[in-house]
Amino acid sequence: MALIVQKYGGTSVASAERVKAVAKRVARLHDAGDQVVVVVSAMGDTTDELIALAGQITKQPPPREMDVLLSTGELVTSALLAMALKDAGYEAISLSGAQAGIKTDATFRKARISAVETRRIQKELESGCIVIVAGFQGITDDNEVTTLGRGGSDTSAVALAAALGAKVCERLTDTDGIYSADPRVVPDAKRLKEIGYDEMLELATYGNKVMQPRAIELAELYNIPIRVASSFNDNPGTLIHGGVSMEVRNKVRSVAYDLDVAKITVVGVPDKPGIAAAIFVPLAKAGISVDTIVQNASVNKVTDLTFTVTRDQMQDALKVIKPVAKQIHARDIASDSKLGKVSIVGTGMQNSPGFAARMFATLSENGINIELITTSEIRITCIMDEAKVKEAVRALHKAFEVELG
Amino acid sequence: MALIVQKYGGTSVASAERVKAVAKRVARLHDAGDQVVVVVSAMGDTTDELIALAGQITKQPPPREMDVLLSTGELVTSALLAMALKDAGYEAISLSGAQAGIKTDATFRKARISAVETRRIQKELESGCIVIVAGFQGITDDNEVTTLGRGGSDTSAVALAAALGAKVCERLTDTDGIYSADPRVVPDAKRLKEIGYDEMLELATYGNKVMQPRAIELAELYNIPIRVASSFNDNPGTLIHGGVSMEVRNKVRSVAYDLDVAKITVVGVPDKPGIAAAIFVPLAKAGISVDTIVQNASVNKVTDLTFTVTRDQMQDALKVIKPVAKQIHARDIASDSKLGKVSIVGTGMQNSPGFAARMFATLSENGINIELITTSEIRITCIMDEAKVKEAVRALHKAFEVELG
Repeated sequence: MALIVQKYGGTSVASAERVKAVAKRVARLHDAGDQVVVVVSAMGDTTDELIALAGQITKQPPPREMDVLLSTGELVTSALLAMALKDAGYEAISLSGAQAGIKTDATFRKARISAVETRRIQKELESGCIVIVAGFQGITDDNEVTTLGRGGSDTSAVALAAALGAKVCERLTDTDGIYSADPRVVPDAKRLKEIGYDEMLELATYGNKVMQPRAIELAELYNIPIRVASSFNDNPGTLIHGGVSMEVRNKVRSVAYDLDVAKITVVGVPDKPGIAAAIFVPLAKAGISVDTIVQNASVNKVTDLTFTVTRDQMQDALKVIKPVAKQIHARDIASDSKLGKVSIVGTGMQNSPGFAARMFATLSENGINIELITTSEIRITCIMDEAKVKEAVRALHKAFEVELG
Repeated sequence: MALIVQKYGGTSVASAERVKAVAKRVARLHDAGDQVVVVVSAMGDTTDELIALAGQITKQPPPREMDVLLSTGELVTSALLAMALKDAGYEAISLSGAQAGIKTDATFRKARISAVETRRIQKELESGCIVIVAGFQGITDDNEVTTLGRGGSDTSAVALAAALGAKVCERLTDTDGIYSADPRVVPDAKRLKEIGYDEMLELATYGNKVMQPRAIELAELYNIPIRVASSFNDNPGTLIHGGVSMEVRNKVRSVAYDLDVAKITVVGVPDKPGIAAAIFVPLAKAGISVDTIVQNASVNKVTDLTFTVTRDQMQDALKVIKPVAKQIHARDIASDSKLGKVSIVGTGMQNSPGFAARMFATLSENGINIELITTSEIRITCIMDEAKVKEAVRALHKAFEVELG
């Protein structure tokens, strides 16, 4: 008998009918002899509706009260799913984040899990119950309700799987796996049978929206395999885990893209120690998250310093940077908010310069100009005009076809 | 500085706009220098919508899960009202039933409050906060969420007022007070300035739907005055309290009616000891709540035994009674589900037989036949054809006009 944690996303529980369908899936797993803990999201657009409701009250909802408000969405789903299971003749119980022992710090809206006290869940599992946990929420030591921020229910599920020693954490939504590229852009993209944590983390960070990096990091830390599959069919989906076979590791796995890129260049900066700090310390203090940073080689002791931010932060970043540029005697500031980035990811490219060369050649053959390049050990990213991004994804998917998947 | 508990009903908080209007009312009270604890209901029809949602999942929702589901409605309102107050520059905090220390037994769907642990509320009040408590809900010693059943938020408010030693519990809804009769039936019915607990309890039990008897009993027990007023205007409403003046006590206060009456008569029962028990013990075991019981004087050692139940319980009651009637050799069973009851209530009628005579005469003059009569020290109730009920209310209101109000 194994313990399995399943997490169902908002579209999978968007109506009473769908909740009943989920109950059938969960029941099947229980019938097979496994212990089951289910983590649920809020139904459909509930969270957005609650945010809109708060928006009708105040422009700046206090985070503590937002968490009280938002946490109700998952409570509703948890109770309904427990009802559906009991109606089908199964023992089931819903638990709030607090009852499930999900302890967090007090950073409302984006709390981090500090511990999972599994006593109550263990007790219910031992009595033969299917346990339904409201995702996305936790409780502080002071008994305050918190929510975990974007992708929070995934994080709840992985944390529970880790604390309970689950065999696998199954993440069931309307997305049926991880693909070699976004199927909306590349129609013949293939679903991957498996992918390593580190590859998935790069993909998630560089534009694949299926999972937030946070839950993947947590899964890697505790070595919990995550199966990403659809709740609407029985396809096996994609297994994210640490034990990906040698053969698979020798490939490019997927092409990711992200259209939310803005670039700021501080032009003609006197190249002396402390310049980078002078620019990036004030940005950090202003809460602006800088992504890629590139500093060109210095010519005549003068250099250009380029960095990227998300588009919605570009104006704020420029406000911070303008006085700094003056102070450090930079010649000018340039910015461009209409950029995108395309990345190829795969552990196969470690120590293999051939991949980079082929990527650049492919883009060049397609007349796509590269604005910036950044790399990690298992990823190569090119930043380009946003209008060229989808074309680049298709060209690269084709060029690396043999390796992909 | 006094402490005031205010409770706002569902229609008073049915939209973001109304929540903001409530925030203004609460702020005004706080500005006047009082400490304020606000108890809120779920917005508008939220509770009914949640019940309907559960109904789409299962015909018999398990009570524990229903309570998880239903408790979310009041949490939403509490968070929104706290947001609205903070937006207006006031310190405010929402508390769930659990956080507010409302401890209950584990009778889901109709839990009873066992204690109110006021530590958290006291702390927040001392720090200058306006405290918003989600009504209708509590928590068991095992950390299970419960709801308090019909009129639950009123009960929450009175219990908090009692535990905190509040000066008054203000109950604000779309109803602006207690009237000498239902104004929809008697257009010139007058709003009462004040009414005694015992009178209000009789009215509530005999058809006045403004408040559930439960909250009134609790208020009487702890001597907490309740002001019933509208949240949509500044009329003083009606004060329910124990110190009603001598003069007012010498009157009929209000005419109440209830259309939910069904009558069952066990005809021709041999009149010997144990007959009443033989009938009413099985009914009690079947969970059927019997209201009025009348046993006619025995003629030739044979009697008729009549009792009333709510209409939705009549069929169940008949099922229980049929075998019993056979067993005790009753001649027949008769039933009628189309009845109503009309009551006049007032402490003034204690030891005054004149009121009963006038009531019967008035009904007779209007050609209304009385099926059953029951009385308490401060109430006289006549059960009649449902079609005659409203006419009876109007006739009695007119007949007792001098005393009313």
